[in-house]
Amino acid sequence: MSDLPKFVEFREEGPREGFQIEPKIYPIEERTQLIDMLSETGLQQIQVGSFVSPRYVPQMQDTGDLFQRIKRKDGVRYTALWLNEKGFQKALSTPNVTMEGRLLFYASDAFSRKNNNISALEMRENQRNWLRLYKEHDLKVDAAYVMAAFGCNFEGAIPMERVLDDFRFIIDLAKEEEVPLPTLVLADTMGWGNPQSVKRLIGAVRDLAPEARIGMHIHDTRGLGLPNLQAALEMGVDMFESSLAGLGGCPFAEHGNFRAAGNVCTEDAIFLCHELGIETGIDLEKLIAAARRAEEIIGAPLMGRVMHSGGLDKFRN
Amino acid sequence: MSDLPKFVEFREEGPREGFQIEPKIYPIEERTQLIDMLSETGLQQIQVGSFVSPRYVPQMQDTGDLFQRIKRKDGVRYTALWLNEKGFQKALSTPNVTMEGRLLFYASDAFSRKNNNISALEMRENQRNWLRLYKEHDLKVDAAYVMAAFGCNFEGAIPMERVLDDFRFIIDLAKEEEVPLPTLVLADTMGWGNPQSVKRLIGAVRDLAPEARIGMHIHDTRGLGLPNLQAALEMGVDMFESSLAGLGGCPFAEHGNFRAAGNVCTEDAIFLCHELGIETGIDLEKLIAAARRAEEIIGAPLMGRVMHSGGLDKFRN
Repeated sequence: MSDLPKFVEFREEGPREGFQIEPKIYPIEERTQLIDMLSETGLQQIQVGSFVSPRYVPQMQDTGDLFQRIKRKDGVRYTALWLNEKGFQKALSTPNVTMEGRLLFYASDAFSRKNNNISALEMRENQRNWLRLYKEHDLKVDAAYVMAAFGCNFEGAIPMERVLDDFRFIIDLAKEEEVPLPTLVLADTMGWGNPQSVKRLIGAVRDLAPEARIGMHIHDTRGLGLPNLQAALEMGVDMFESSLAGLGGCPFAEHGNFRAAGNVCTEDAIFLCHELGIETGIDLEKLIAAARRAEEIIGAPLMGRVMHSGGLDKFRN
Repeated sequence: MSDLPKFVEFREEGPREGFQIEPKIYPIEERTQLIDMLSETGLQQIQVGSFVSPRYVPQMQDTGDLFQRIKRKDGVRYTALWLNEKGFQKALSTPNVTMEGRLLFYASDAFSRKNNNISALEMRENQRNWLRLYKEHDLKVDAAYVMAAFGCNFEGAIPMERVLDDFRFIIDLAKEEEVPLPTLVLADTMGWGNPQSVKRLIGAVRDLAPEARIGMHIHDTRGLGLPNLQAALEMGVDMFESSLAGLGGCPFAEHGNFRAAGNVCTEDAIFLCHELGIETGIDLEKLIAAARRAEEIIGAPLMGRVMHSGGLDKFRN
């Protein structure tokens, strides 16, 4: 385990992933308070919301307002998601949004068609236009995501070669457009990865671009979130997207009794890192307090572990 | 990851660990039905209940009755826990109990005093008497447990040397008493282990007794249950004690809103093994059905992942 990174960055997805899947809209005051608590934990990046169609995602329609209410903390990037140019322009004109470019690729054609009504290849070509748009606005292209990188509930297992093909496209595109290579993010959108496939894919991506920073967006749908994060750490990955208290939850849940797990849980992942001697810059106790507040806001048990048990520091001799 | 075992045995602790921590006593018909469902999954061992003081653990007072009601399936071992000779005699005289000896050691003195009112060293000496009692009754000594092997909420971190000392005692005892070496079980009773400490301790135990079978009893208190199980798999461990749906839960929970996690979740662990190509002899779909039934019986969300999301086989091309 000699490849463990010394410092790992966590990017918090909870405020968006968590509240966008809920059937109700939670009071903006409570969501503001939660983000303000997160700002004090040491997190460097918090995704606040999304500028997407209020017809499809009414839970996010007050994202602009939310950005105006939060107490911006120096050194924290407050990001938003957009999926079309209208959303991008809205983000641009909203105070407090940290503007950075992100490119989105789909390893699953069926998933791309479902989400975007276009094929994965058309989606890929569109990313060229997005990159140019970001350049025009002098925005750094921060990260490029390949979604459903391990498998897809609509398409089945995804051959590794298809994912690598997307990453090759990204590497070539950055070269052609003369921008620095963005962080290459493997997104296990529907929880198909396992520690072996995670290590294999990370190794193959590193072979394509040894100089690249590699990140992972992990979902804990089937319980392998933390084993996969551990596998990625052992491959030297030092950036993860995760969700406070495991907020999120998968719309593909089979069993009505309880929501299926969402993103890998931020505070559990940070507990793991700290136990392994890896620094994160994050105060676990403050993060646990925020997770407990999130559970109060949602009003239902959330699936984080360490938020219920507490950490270990207070027991140490 | 070349040391992964080809076949891993899971021993189901849910019926005991799960129901003994609940404040109420669930109908015996429902617990019988759950055990009967588990018998059909391919599990080789199911811990049905315990013969302990009804004053302290009233939830287990009908264990004898439960043993009589279950449909015994050939090839499945139905075990029980006892902590004193009275309990042992009760188990002996109860039909359907698979009688095997287990030895219990405490790496934490404070935990031993709390659970047994005697020191860890006195507890250890008592195990010599237990072993002789098992021999007298011609019972195989199946496993020897060192509890709180990684740390203890009452005592803090546990030095590895203390754990190894217990295992040395066990190895010497088996030699002196001329019985086969039992499976050496590392029990992370309060969720203190991490993938590094798990690998380190397993390696050290294997150095003491290269011929021994090593097992783990894992709690998921702080979310590291599956990463630790993965680490143990990579060290060749092929026996785990786990709990359906993550039943169990820790009495040391800090946060009133929701129970802290209990044992590592059987069906999530089995999903992990199957994804890694490791056989378990267990039908995941049947196990998921049992986990969902357990959630209905408990009447509160349980923390298993795959029971809510479903497995992957039906999506595979």
